[in-house]
Formats: sequence, structure tokens, C-alpha cells
Amino acid sequence: MEMKFSKRAMEAKASEVRELLKLTDRADVIAFGGGLPAEEVFPVEEMIEICKDILIEHGTRSMQYSTTEGNNQIRSLMQEIMKEKGITAELDNILVTSGSQQGLDLTAKVFIEAGDKIICEKPTYMAAINAFKPFYPDFLEVEMDEEGIVIEELEKLVKENPDVKFIYTIPDYQNPTGITMSLERRKQMIDIANRYDVLIIEDNPYSEISFAGEPLPPIKSFDTEGRVIYLSTFSKLVCPGFRIGWVCGKQSIINKYGLLKQGTDLHTNIFSQLQILHFFKKYNRKERIDYIKGIYKRKRDVMLTAIEKEFPKEVSYTTPVGGMFVWITLPEKIKAKNLLEKALKENVAFVPGDAFYAKSHVENTIRLNYSGVEEDKIKIGIKKLGEIIRNEINL
Amino acid sequence: MEMKFSKRAMEAKASEVRELLKLTDRADVIAFGGGLPAEEVFPVEEMIEICKDILIEHGTRSMQYSTTEGNNQIRSLMQEIMKEKGITAELDNILVTSGSQQGLDLTAKVFIEAGDKIICEKPTYMAAINAFKPFYPDFLEVEMDEEGIVIEELEKLVKENPDVKFIYTIPDYQNPTGITMSLERRKQMIDIANRYDVLIIEDNPYSEISFAGEPLPPIKSFDTEGRVIYLSTFSKLVCPGFRIGWVCGKQSIINKYGLLKQGTDLHTNIFSQLQILHFFKKYNRKERIDYIKGIYKRKRDVMLTAIEKEFPKEVSYTTPVGGMFVWITLPEKIKAKNLLEKALKENVAFVPGDAFYAKSHVENTIRLNYSGVEEDKIKIGIKKLGEIIRNEINL
Repeated sequence: MEMKFSKRAMEAKASEVRELLKLTDRADVIAFGGGLPAEEVFPVEEMIEICKDILIEHGTRSMQYSTTEGNNQIRSLMQEIMKEKGITAELDNILVTSGSQQGLDLTAKVFIEAGDKIICEKPTYMAAINAFKPFYPDFLEVEMDEEGIVIEELEKLVKENPDVKFIYTIPDYQNPTGITMSLERRKQMIDIANRYDVLIIEDNPYSEISFAGEPLPPIKSFDTEGRVIYLSTFSKLVCPGFRIGWVCGKQSIINKYGLLKQGTDLHTNIFSQLQILHFFKKYNRKERIDYIKGIYKRKRDVMLTAIEKEFPKEVSYTTPVGGMFVWITLPEKIKAKNLLEKALKENVAFVPGDAFYAKSHVENTIRLNYSGVEEDKIKIGIKKLGEIIRNEINL
Repeated sequence: MEMKFSKRAMEAKASEVRELLKLTDRADVIAFGGGLPAEEVFPVEEMIEICKDILIEHGTRSMQYSTTEGNNQIRSLMQEIMKEKGITAELDNILVTSGSQQGLDLTAKVFIEAGDKIICEKPTYMAAINAFKPFYPDFLEVEMDEEGIVIEELEKLVKENPDVKFIYTIPDYQNPTGITMSLERRKQMIDIANRYDVLIIEDNPYSEISFAGEPLPPIKSFDTEGRVIYLSTFSKLVCPGFRIGWVCGKQSIINKYGLLKQGTDLHTNIFSQLQILHFFKKYNRKERIDYIKGIYKRKRDVMLTAIEKEFPKEVSYTTPVGGMFVWITLPEKIKAKNLLEKALKENVAFVPGDAFYAKSHVENTIRLNYSGVEEDKIKIGIKKLGEIIRNEINL
């Protein structure tokens, strides 16, 4: 039988690293590889009562087909969150998505034609690459430094490529690097987008989880022309398993997202929309954010202290002011993939950074997740990793 | 600001009919327009206990990120259902999807390149057209009669178009026509697929809801070459709001579905996978099917009896042996859209059939849904509709 796959299906291959990491789903492995939120903060107990409330209050409506744009009450909650970030939105500016990942898939559907140029950070979020790739874009990578996207580089790129469709950016505690874009850069970015008539996709799943006071205002809060599309999620504030996210943007754009969502999955799970809604009816959002921030910050501190102590001086690392990841740069001669094989023998897992580059190949970087690992395991894991790196350097 | 939408987004327009029907979401409207399962069968009460069980038994795992392929226990349940239908499947042959609609979106992603030919029934499921269209296929329509796809027509099409990617079919109580493909046609269809090396996408969301004894064996049960991909859902057996469906097929194909699902939504809502799983751990599936069948059959009977009594003789209609829809063919000169405008004034809603044609324009057909309407309302609505049709004919 002849296989008649699309080009995108032919190209889709199980990543070698993902297969390796699949084997690490055991209690004795210290898994810095995942991107898991800390599950000790998931409101399991609270959810028992909430599910009951939903079924009593909403009855069959919590189980029936629902609207593509999403439940209006949860859209109001999203609107409120947007407002706190300095973004004015009406309900029609907001579409509920099946996780933020669907926001990325729909972004690709709404904008990308084969061969279209899109700019993303170098490195960028792996699953965004996976969402965009099936629509055959031409990725352009823009350099970052400790303040985020290097603006001169960005301006050069959009000047040289006036047909760029959009710039994809994760300004807060970026996945994978943990880097936060500075306030000045945010303003410069919107200025460039305006001057060169480019759209910005601002992906912001962690914003609230800031370890250094209030998070910076999102790029969208400086947007006066409706050219920023903002993506977010409840995965970190409540839990990821319910798959509730949203997209916020200009109405004419959000309409297109909605129309294409219809063919994608009709609508987002209504029961889980109500789970999130009722959770925040019952529990204070600010208190919850403070609680989560405390736990994440402690884990970050444990990881950074351990890295400082255990890693050789040739290794550099980022200091995230929020979110879930630390980014490690090894001496150039060290290949992260070789290191992973050795680490797995010691029951320590991580993701080699190469998977986060849309186009380049960079073999000496590592993404470490701290949110999903217990504090004492972070210490042990970083110690082991330090030894392995030291041995590799001295080889 | 210049809009830089993709072609698919430019072409995506809110359907006029959908906008009309949006206005009918009021208690005083008799809505034959939706495709809503009967919500009186939704296990609302039972779900309170089930949610509690899930949270106690699975704890944070019911809320954390989960695997793309789906929970193994629910895949086992799907495997069991497949087995009862004469389809042998291993776990690796099954992928959990976010509703059956996602099965359609992924089918498009896995197979369709711009310009690829795909065959679908005339008429076919509207949301399948919406799922495939963004990938720019060339739709070929195949005629149906009361036994389903006309095999001679199908053979002619695949002979003339040896590059056809797949045939999309809904063999049981098709949406929108209510037509069931005969046993002989099913066997002929797989024979044609084998001889001309074509894939079949078999969409079967209602199979169990059969009013005439056991449902016919699916086309996939005659598939010896792994060329049928079977799509199904729990939307009708439990409820649609949880968005739990699945795809079953050859492992090399399902792998591609899984890889492309990663970029689409990472994974399906894990809490709702467990809701379905625990529901069928606790309640007998056969009993549930019998219960639902009874209710649907009574509603169908009420509708058909009313149509026979109230509709003028110039109108023909199908007699579905399962599922949720009756298909009406009006005299050629009558336009269903004009009829809808008049019906809405009388607070009766339906979908004009034109939306269900991938390519043709047929203006004198109507889809009526009985599952989502109460029995006394069916009687009143059909009586009103009969009068409106009679007036229109006599104009």
C-alpha cells in the first residue's frame, strides 16, 4: 500500500530526545527535562467541591455542545486579567482556546501561507515551532541577549524582509532561556512593529509568576494599532490538564481565529472552562498567585544556589526573574546530547537546547526545569550534573 | 494597518445561516437546526460522584500535563469498543482526540496538500468540509441513494482520478441525510479502495444508536490492508461538552496523527478522559446504549409521524434507522433559505441543506434534528413547518 501522507506528515518525526525522555517517567529519575508546573499547588481538594457546584448550578449545560468563542463568564475573567495588565479588551476581543498551544495552531492557520516569513527568538519555544511548521513558514531567527530580542537585529531583519508576517516572542521568563525582555525593548519593539507594519504574537503563559515584584507590562499594553495578538493560559495558575487558554486581539483578527477554530475542534471543553471559572469565583486570584510565586521562587533559588556551587566555572547560566526554566551554556566543545546520555545513566534528565532552535543548530546548551522537581531532588540532580559536566570538560 | 491573513482566513466567513440560527438560542424557539444530542440523557447526577472519585484516585495526575496519545486505560476502553465492532486494534492503533472534530482536523493535516483530491458524499458533514478546507483540497462529490454512496459513481471517480488521497464517508445514519450504507455497499467500497489503492476515512459518531437491531459492521471491519481510518466519539454515549473522541488505524498512520497532534494541542484534556473512563467503570455500557436508543427512537418516531401527517405530498424525506437527523427534499422551485426566514418568524429553526455540499449548490433541501428537541415541541414545530411549506408551494 502506498502511503499518501502530506509533506508535513512525512517530515514529522518523533524526536530522538523525546523518545529518550519518555524512558525517564519513573520516580527514581530526577527530571529537569519536562516543562511541568509544580503539581503540589494544584487545587485537588478544592476541585471536588467545585465540580459538584458546576453540575448542580449548570446541569446539562456543563456537558452539552457549547459556543466556539467560549463561555462568556470565563471570557469576562480573562478580560479582567487583561485589564490588570493594562490591556483594554471587550468580550469580542477574546477567544477561549484549548490550551495556549491551540492559540499557536490557530495563529498558524490564520496567518501562515507556505513560504511566509516569520521571525522568532533564537532560541524559541519548541512547541511553537511544532505548531507553525506544518504550515510551511520560512523561519527567521533573531538574536537575544540578557534583555531579550536585540532590537538592532530585529530592525535589520524586518527592513530586509518587508514581507514578514509576524514576530513571535515570549517576553517574560522565556521558554527555554528564562530571559525577560526589558521595558525599553518592549517599547522599541512595538515602535518597530508600527513603523514596518508587522504583527506581533506575544506568548505569555507565566507573566504572573514574577519573583521580582510586579511583572513588566506586556508589549500589547503599548499597542495602539491592534497589531499585537496576546496568548495566555491557566496552565500555571490552576493546572495544565484542563487545557484552558485564550487569545486576545483586535476583533477582526479574533473573528478569524474563531472561524478557524470551528473546523479545528468546534469548541473548548465546557466543563473545564467552568472548573476554572468557579475556582476563581471561590478563591482569590492574588492570593493564589502569591502562593505559587513563593513555591516557584524557592525552587529557583535552590537550583541557582546549587548551580553556583556545583557547576564548573566554564559553564554560564541565566538568572530567571520568574517562570520555570534556567538556561545553561556549556563550553563550545561539549555536546549536550552526549551529556544527556551520561546523565540518564545517573538517573538525571534534561532537554538539550538544540530542539529550541527553529533553524540553527546549537549543540552546547541545556534547558533545566525547576518547577516540576522537588527541592531536595534539585540539589541532588544539580550535583550529579555538575560532576558529569566536569568530567566531560576534563575528557 | 495592512491585514496579512492567510488565504484560508480570508476565505473563512461567518455563514449567514449560522448567524441567523444564533438568534434562535431562546426557549421559545423550536430548534431543529442544531445537532445537539438529547441532553436529558446526560449523566449529571452520576458525574458528581465520578468527579470526586477521579480527584481522590488520580489526584494531581488528573490535572497535570498528560501524554499526546491519551490515557492508556481509556484507550483500552476504545479498544474494547472497536473489538465489539469487529475491529482488532492494539493500543498503538488508537489516539485519543479532542472530540471527533479534531480527528478531522488531524486527518487534513496528515494527508492533505494544496490541490489534493478527496472524495466526499453529496451532501456531507458540514464541519468536515470546514476541517478539510483550510488545507486547500479539491473536493470531489459522489452521489448517494437510499443505500449510501452509489458504487458505480465512486468507481468512476477513483478511476478517473488515480491520485485521490482519500474517501470521506459517514456510513451510519449520515449527517446530514440520515442515510445508512448497506452491508453490500460497505464490502464493495473496501474492494474498490483496495483495487485502486485509496484510503477511506470512516467517520462514525453514532453507530451504536441503532433503531433496527444491531448496527451494521463498520467498513473498517472488512479492512485487511490497514487502509481505513476510523473516527469516533463519546459525544453521543456520554456527552459532547467533554470533547473526547478517538482515531483508530494502522500504527504507522496513527503515529503521524500523534506527531501532528503535539503541535495542535499537546494532548486532550486529561480530566475529561478520566470522566468518561470512570463513567463506564461504574455504569454498564450496553444498558446505557439501550436507554439512549429508546429515547432517540421515540423522538424519531414522533418526527416521522408528524411529517407524514403534516407535510404536503410533494415533499420527500428519509427514514433514518439511527442517529439524529431526517433529510427533507422540497420541490425544486422551493428555496430552503426563504423558508427558513419565514419559519423563524414562527419561532421554528432548521438548517438549509446547502451548507452540507462541499462543491454543489442545492437549495431545496433541509436537515431536521430530532434528538435535541422535546417530543411535544417536535409535533408543534413540524405542524408549523408543514403549513409554511404548503403556503410556499401554493405561492
